[in-house]
Amino acid sequence: MTTPTAAEIEGAIRNVPDFPKPGIQFKDITPLLADARLFAGAVDLLTGKFQPGAVDAVVGIDARGFIFAAAAAVKLRASLVPIRKKGKLPYRTIEQDYALEYGTATIAMHVDALKPGARVLLLDDLLATGGTAAAAAALIRKLGAQILEIAFLIELKFLKGREKLNGYPVRSIIAY
Amino acid sequence: MTTPTAAEIEGAIRNVPDFPKPGIQFKDITPLLADARLFAGAVDLLTGKFQPGAVDAVVGIDARGFIFAAAAAVKLRASLVPIRKKGKLPYRTIEQDYALEYGTATIAMHVDALKPGARVLLLDDLLATGGTAAAAAALIRKLGAQILEIAFLIELKFLKGREKLNGYPVRSIIAY
Repeated sequence: MTTPTAAEIEGAIRNVPDFPKPGIQFKDITPLLADARLFAGAVDLLTGKFQPGAVDAVVGIDARGFIFAAAAAVKLRASLVPIRKKGKLPYRTIEQDYALEYGTATIAMHVDALKPGARVLLLDDLLATGGTAAAAAALIRKLGAQILEIAFLIELKFLKGREKLNGYPVRSIIAY
Repeated sequence: MTTPTAAEIEGAIRNVPDFPKPGIQFKDITPLLADARLFAGAVDLLTGKFQPGAVDAVVGIDARGFIFAAAAAVKLRASLVPIRKKGKLPYRTIEQDYALEYGTATIAMHVDALKPGARVLLLDDLLATGGTAAAAAALIRKLGAQILEIAFLIELKFLKGREKLNGYPVRSIIAY
């Protein structure tokens, strides 16, 4: 299978207007996941320059982030580390708050999820305001691991999420 | 990498007592995910006899089910179809209720997620009472697809979840 282009992948993303609320144009990745070649190709593009052995752990964020992170971890022969909303992980956790439009949310990672110095690829499906990704990066750094790159399938550039990820290499496959 | 045995995989599952509530022995899969060889091996065991081309779609259930289903879909060169809690999927959905200890829950799948006759492998991390898996199977059947197998990483046999999945081939890698 040849790796698809970003344009092909973009063509498989469905715009759903007014979800989850009026005025939001939701980027639906399920038609992409439904195309085996495009899904595998998206994983290839997300892992980018990294070869098996170059990454110790792929960190994915609940829930759609798990989809790409799991496939990337198997491809790179790396650990998969899940970050979840507070209260979902069963063992001892570290936590990080981040701001929402109204109020705050908290994400968590197990205290033993990453070794100090571990080389981490952080993946998520969408870079919007960057709040979740910045909080995830903070959790990774709290455990002393190093972030090689933060990669997203989709970036909503007008929300300027990259500004919250200053100091980390950030890459996206498709930008709106 | 040699495929690990079920005993090796069982050795990487952590028992967390009293989570999410007193008396529950939670099976924590994160140490398994943290071991790249065991995680990839668990995906190999879950896909079992199926070779690339033998399955049209792997269906995974939010959220931990996504982890195994995504890796299995890439391995089998199949579609990945997510089933989520009601209200999370952006496009038009079909829904299915199932009973909880107290009350009911509802899961959903996109109306265009599966073609009639599609050959489906349904994967989840845990077979407990079987309510979620039976509801997921009902969604798959509503779209006219055929379930080749339902496979779980862990089965809690004392909860008799298999009885709710009568008529489908069911397989688990580890049983407690």
